[in-house]
Amino acid sequence: MSHIESIQSWLGENNYQLGYISNFKNIQYLTGFESDPIERVLALLIFPDQDPFIFAPALEVEAVKDTGWKYPVYGYLDHEDPYEIIKSQILHRVNSPKKWAIEKGNLVVNRFETIRQKFPDAIFAGDLTPFIEKLQLIKTPDEIEKLEIAGKWADFAFETGFKALSTAKTEQDIVAEIEYALKKKGIMHTSFDTIIQSGANAAEPHGVPKKDFIKANELVLFDLGVVFDGYISDASRTVAFGDTLSDKARDIYNVCLDAQLTAQAAVKPGMTAAELDKIARDIITKAGYGEYFIHRLGHGMGQSEHEFPSIMEGNNLQLEPGMCFSIEPGIYIPGVAGVRIEDCVHVTEKGAEPFTHTSKELQFIPNN
Amino acid sequence: MSHIESIQSWLGENNYQLGYISNFKNIQYLTGFESDPIERVLALLIFPDQDPFIFAPALEVEAVKDTGWKYPVYGYLDHEDPYEIIKSQILHRVNSPKKWAIEKGNLVVNRFETIRQKFPDAIFAGDLTPFIEKLQLIKTPDEIEKLEIAGKWADFAFETGFKALSTAKTEQDIVAEIEYALKKKGIMHTSFDTIIQSGANAAEPHGVPKKDFIKANELVLFDLGVVFDGYISDASRTVAFGDTLSDKARDIYNVCLDAQLTAQAAVKPGMTAAELDKIARDIITKAGYGEYFIHRLGHGMGQSEHEFPSIMEGNNLQLEPGMCFSIEPGIYIPGVAGVRIEDCVHVTEKGAEPFTHTSKELQFIPNN
Repeated sequence: MSHIESIQSWLGENNYQLGYISNFKNIQYLTGFESDPIERVLALLIFPDQDPFIFAPALEVEAVKDTGWKYPVYGYLDHEDPYEIIKSQILHRVNSPKKWAIEKGNLVVNRFETIRQKFPDAIFAGDLTPFIEKLQLIKTPDEIEKLEIAGKWADFAFETGFKALSTAKTEQDIVAEIEYALKKKGIMHTSFDTIIQSGANAAEPHGVPKKDFIKANELVLFDLGVVFDGYISDASRTVAFGDTLSDKARDIYNVCLDAQLTAQAAVKPGMTAAELDKIARDIITKAGYGEYFIHRLGHGMGQSEHEFPSIMEGNNLQLEPGMCFSIEPGIYIPGVAGVRIEDCVHVTEKGAEPFTHTSKELQFIPNN
Repeated sequence: MSHIESIQSWLGENNYQLGYISNFKNIQYLTGFESDPIERVLALLIFPDQDPFIFAPALEVEAVKDTGWKYPVYGYLDHEDPYEIIKSQILHRVNSPKKWAIEKGNLVVNRFETIRQKFPDAIFAGDLTPFIEKLQLIKTPDEIEKLEIAGKWADFAFETGFKALSTAKTEQDIVAEIEYALKKKGIMHTSFDTIIQSGANAAEPHGVPKKDFIKANELVLFDLGVVFDGYISDASRTVAFGDTLSDKARDIYNVCLDAQLTAQAAVKPGMTAAELDKIARDIITKAGYGEYFIHRLGHGMGQSEHEFPSIMEGNNLQLEPGMCFSIEPGIYIPGVAGVRIEDCVHVTEKGAEPFTHTSKELQFIPNN
């Protein structure tokens, strides 16, 4: 069943006459048409027993057709009232459209009020936001393939960054080198701001790369990812720069690595997200660093790094094949050092397959 | 009067008991505190006759204080109900808070419904979205200064990009070179995806840089900008790459330049946005290219390139000192070439001051 057919079934089962989808990222997910309309109106209308349609700015109508969209697409010009056109197309399909499902996590109040004025008898009880989030939980083989390619580019970025490490360079310089190398290969977007943090700077998990020169004989944390065909990668590696390392830094590395490898090996369908978090957290806590692991074990990912499932205490969601998320324990000791080791994985019948393959064993990178 | 004081006055004049601001970019604009809370709750509460407060995720409370915010800030932990804490803080200040102003262009329906459940007697008639947009129309001297610095970095980016032009490079390579040079100088963010389009590719104003090698004796269009301390630059230049150019390409360049220079010189307080658009459009139309100038003359800018005023037909808003916008006529002849020349400017008592100073005369850039 296609994603749109899933929504059609859900609308029918819940007795909604139509679904109004306004989140442009979800429209991309459902139709393949990618466009941020900014202040203009873009919507996907889905009906339980009729064909869906896309409503878009006139400028974008050809681009919708170019994606192979086989249902109607209607455009509007800047001087036209978009909601009046949407209304007439809905009335063309549904006599008395009273029972709506909307994306309550995306539609803003002024647009909602406009729709309510056009349909004063309608009831907007249905919320498509959680249903679409749930659909997005399980990735298709086609999505997994894109995530694997995005992961390979993250591996390329690590290789580039490790080679670039030098006491003559700043953290920001390493970001520049990595993103330059990616763009030269045609990978034009990172999935978030590339993070390079060395020494004590890595102890701030919300910190940013600085203009300070990188010092030898300290840990350097890399957290990065790219966008490939609408799907992202996200991975972290921490390496030793130089030829020696303090016992403390080596110890937190080994504990974090143990937590990461053990959790990744433990993934299996049927276990809960909370159980997985606990496996990693227990290892770090037993080693005495529990208070320095100050975030959840992982987050869902796919088209962005803000998806479900959240791998954290209290989340009793059972893992299923096709779910994709990060496994990223971290130990951050203020003023001393920070370590984070992260792969994103997809759940299979047998366990977890990572999207990134850069070695996680402690690597010593010589000064270049 | 500070921006927050302006909102306090507006609330008082309109008889609203409180204003609820949810757009994190507007919270940054009003308070200096910058944070995208993603799925967490961040809000700024403003009252006509009492001190405002910020409500933020607990993780961010220290960061709010670090900005020098002199009013209260309240945090919440992930397991707490954020709206319950906001409610108690509101009730601490207003006995019976019924008359609300919210940001109807930002608040999403599910959060709005949660607030309505907490305050079942409240009426949400006020909309802060247009009021804040209007505040942001007129930039302060401090904002103008940041826009000028952002503009200088755009000039640096043009210089870098022009020098990088080579028949051995692709459009994407030039993007890579520009962004690498910016990052090496500590300018870590562009304001939008850097656009480099050569030859016929430049005839698609919504197009993207390609992997094709750049050909000599064609026009190359650059549209770029950076973020500096929360404020952006945005400028376009089109240059001749090589040592000769077709008569057609030279002609559309000269017409576009005439339109740009004439419009920029014509800016004065009191004229309307539509009048300014018409000055540029008439020149292009009289030269026979009117059908190839397919967008408005300009857009407002400041913290982003999606602000007001919109410089277009039908907008009778009068220009005032402190307004900032682009002046960017373009001529796009499908299959042949595209030209766009753009400065962003701020209106002064005397006219328009541009933020970018790279020459707009037709430049021939030799093959490197």
